[in-house]
Amino acid sequence: AQQFDFSDHSHRRYNPLTDSWILVSPHRAKRPWLGQQEAPSKPNAPAYDSKCYLCPGNDRATGVQNPNYESTYIFPNDYAAVKIDQPPLPHDDSGKDTLKNRLFKVQSVRGNCFVICFSPKHNLTIPLMKQSDLVQVVNAWQRLYNDLAREAREDHKPFKYVQIFENKGTAMGCSNLHPHGQAWCLEAIPSEVSQELKSFGKYKHEHNADLFADYVKLESEEKSRLVLENDSFMVVVPYWAVWPFETMIISKKKIASISHFDQTQKEDLASIMKQLTTKYDNLFETSFPYSMGIHQAPLNATGEELNNSWFHMHFYPPLLRSATVRKFLVGFELLGEPQRDLTPEQAAERLRKLDGNVHYSEKL
Amino acid sequence: AQQFDFSDHSHRRYNPLTDSWILVSPHRAKRPWLGQQEAPSKPNAPAYDSKCYLCPGNDRATGVQNPNYESTYIFPNDYAAVKIDQPPLPHDDSGKDTLKNRLFKVQSVRGNCFVICFSPKHNLTIPLMKQSDLVQVVNAWQRLYNDLAREAREDHKPFKYVQIFENKGTAMGCSNLHPHGQAWCLEAIPSEVSQELKSFGKYKHEHNADLFADYVKLESEEKSRLVLENDSFMVVVPYWAVWPFETMIISKKKIASISHFDQTQKEDLASIMKQLTTKYDNLFETSFPYSMGIHQAPLNATGEELNNSWFHMHFYPPLLRSATVRKFLVGFELLGEPQRDLTPEQAAERLRKLDGNVHYSEKL
Ligand SMILES: O=P(O)(O)O[C@H]1O[C@H](CO)[C@@H](O)[C@H](O)[C@H]1O
Ligand SMILES: O=P(O)(O)O[C@H]1O[C@H](CO)[C@@H](O)[C@H](O)[C@H]1O
Repeated sequence: AQQFDFSDHSHRRYNPLTDSWILVSPHRAKRPWLGQQEAPSKPNAPAYDSKCYLCPGNDRATGVQNPNYESTYIFPNDYAAVKIDQPPLPHDDSGKDTLKNRLFKVQSVRGNCFVICFSPKHNLTIPLMKQSDLVQVVNAWQRLYNDLAREAREDHKPFKYVQIFENKGTAMGCSNLHPHGQAWCLEAIPSEVSQELKSFGKYKHEHNADLFADYVKLESEEKSRLVLENDSFMVVVPYWAVWPFETMIISKKKIASISHFDQTQKEDLASIMKQLTTKYDNLFETSFPYSMGIHQAPLNATGEELNNSWFHMHFYPPLLRSATVRKFLVGFELLGEPQRDLTPEQAAERLRKLDGNVHYSEKL
Repeated sequence: AQQFDFSDHSHRRYNPLTDSWILVSPHRAKRPWLGQQEAPSKPNAPAYDSKCYLCPGNDRATGVQNPNYESTYIFPNDYAAVKIDQPPLPHDDSGKDTLKNRLFKVQSVRGNCFVICFSPKHNLTIPLMKQSDLVQVVNAWQRLYNDLAREAREDHKPFKYVQIFENKGTAMGCSNLHPHGQAWCLEAIPSEVSQELKSFGKYKHEHNADLFADYVKLESEEKSRLVLENDSFMVVVPYWAVWPFETMIISKKKIASISHFDQTQKEDLASIMKQLTTKYDNLFETSFPYSMGIHQAPLNATGEELNNSWFHMHFYPPLLRSATVRKFLVGFELLGEPQRDLTPEQAAERLRKLDGNVHYSEKL
């Protein structure tokens, strides 16, 4: 009798971080595509663009002038999604069981948002930066995390969680191509993060072990989803990946947040980020779009929050078949559940085989 | 002192269907946009395209020839995400507490997928179809639902839930522009649907009332999110909408599934879909992209499933500012939580004011 073949037969995999399922349909990548073509990345962008809001010395959209910064540079977002001050939200605290109290739950959210220009150069994406310059990005993230925690503690600023992330490429909604990340700091822990904290807590309660300690062990044994590793971190395509070439960078040992990183860990993170993004660019010989970000402990975390936090990064890249054909997470995915067209093991094998040291543009 | 203003101050709203939060940042739509431009819809597509896999009489990618169909036409998807037959998945049912059993949860999924050509005409999107032809689409959905339920009952086919949906426009990953929807039928209830069933059950348990009965009542009283209504259905921008102009079509009375629709309900659904999509097209004078789909009772539902099911449709349209600038749910949204740039009430007001009867192309 025929055997179940994970690279041919449809199955669902469970994501223990978000407590949800993903449909895996390995045979579906063969279907014809007459849909949207992404714009391929423009090669040879200039190192300085006089029209860019983020380049050193230029005026931003609000008229503020950027300094002539020479390394990683952080400034407050001119169009912040949250603000430090706003009037309190009036609450119906009568406790009455009205339809409104049942169905329209709402919270005020204050906070602050920042833009992090990785370097002064308009054309240096992460894979093209020198490792020593990438260490400056990690330093900037650490400094920001520590500063926000201190402001919350000492100045009572409404900061509880800082979500550090990067949207790279127009396909991932990046609104300015100067390489930059963002940090949105809120007085609430965002849903994804609080769901992860909950899952880690539940796992610890059930198994008296850290979910990521077990997961790191299992992936080092199985090796089929492993892409890269160094002393401090590993890169895997998660068993439950949604995006075609989704990966996680996971700290091999428990570190609650970037605040605790020593010099080796900073260099190891810079190095593995450079290697991973070089592989991504080499996959379809294009500047590979993605959204990525850090999940770690809330600011001034409680004991329980600290217990349930483990530094890791998620990379969500949309490209599926080529530099111009992406995966759309649309109809079935939005109404039913996320669906993918190749297995995580197939994706990991392709990424593993690619050069992580030399960028394709250097070979042209 | 300044008052909290929902159309200016940031807040989070709770979605009781999916048990999750959305960040609302009403002031953010003003930021500059140098990002991706969507291709505007091509006007004057021909009624027949000899290269289209879906037009009547043409060959599909697999070589099968389409019949000369004259009304809504359903056929099995040549690149189905799930299949009726596949070998069983071997399970480690030793019950041992291994890391693999803890972390790699997996299920086999069988089923079948269908394509539903709305009409033979290559250029007739829903807003451009005659209402009587749209009733044929509703009929086809009903017939498919009933057939699949019967095949599950009588022929033991692995069918438990049929997710009916449409991806419209290249921005929503549509791979063929001939107006069509899809139906993916699985032996498992997809995550989104099972989460809704759970939420409806919880609400009933806590309040001894149907969530949608209460919600329909509240939205008819408040009116600020109401877009359209007729005897059988209402269209609202949900209080917890994520996409800029997201809407739901909700049955005003409890109907568990399309299987129970009478002639009036079919005509009312056809009519309100035509009006809603006409408004969408009129908003930015473009063929408005969206993903939409039906949530309803599982096939051959248990008593409890029937109790917790209420026919409704979700429309997820991506456009934000114009025919060419969409909302990207990316970095913060993927890592943190969904975020929107205008309030649901602002979106509803704009949709309400638009003409739902005359399509902009008829006025050109
Ligand atoms: O089935 P299609 O139209 O080829 O494909 C489209 O819809 C599917 C179901 O939502 C998605 O999985 C695909 O990513 C999308 O491109
Ligand atoms: O802040 P930006 O780069 O202007 O905007 C981008 O990132 C934000 C945070 O993920 C998203 O809300 C926007 O939709 C996206 O276009």
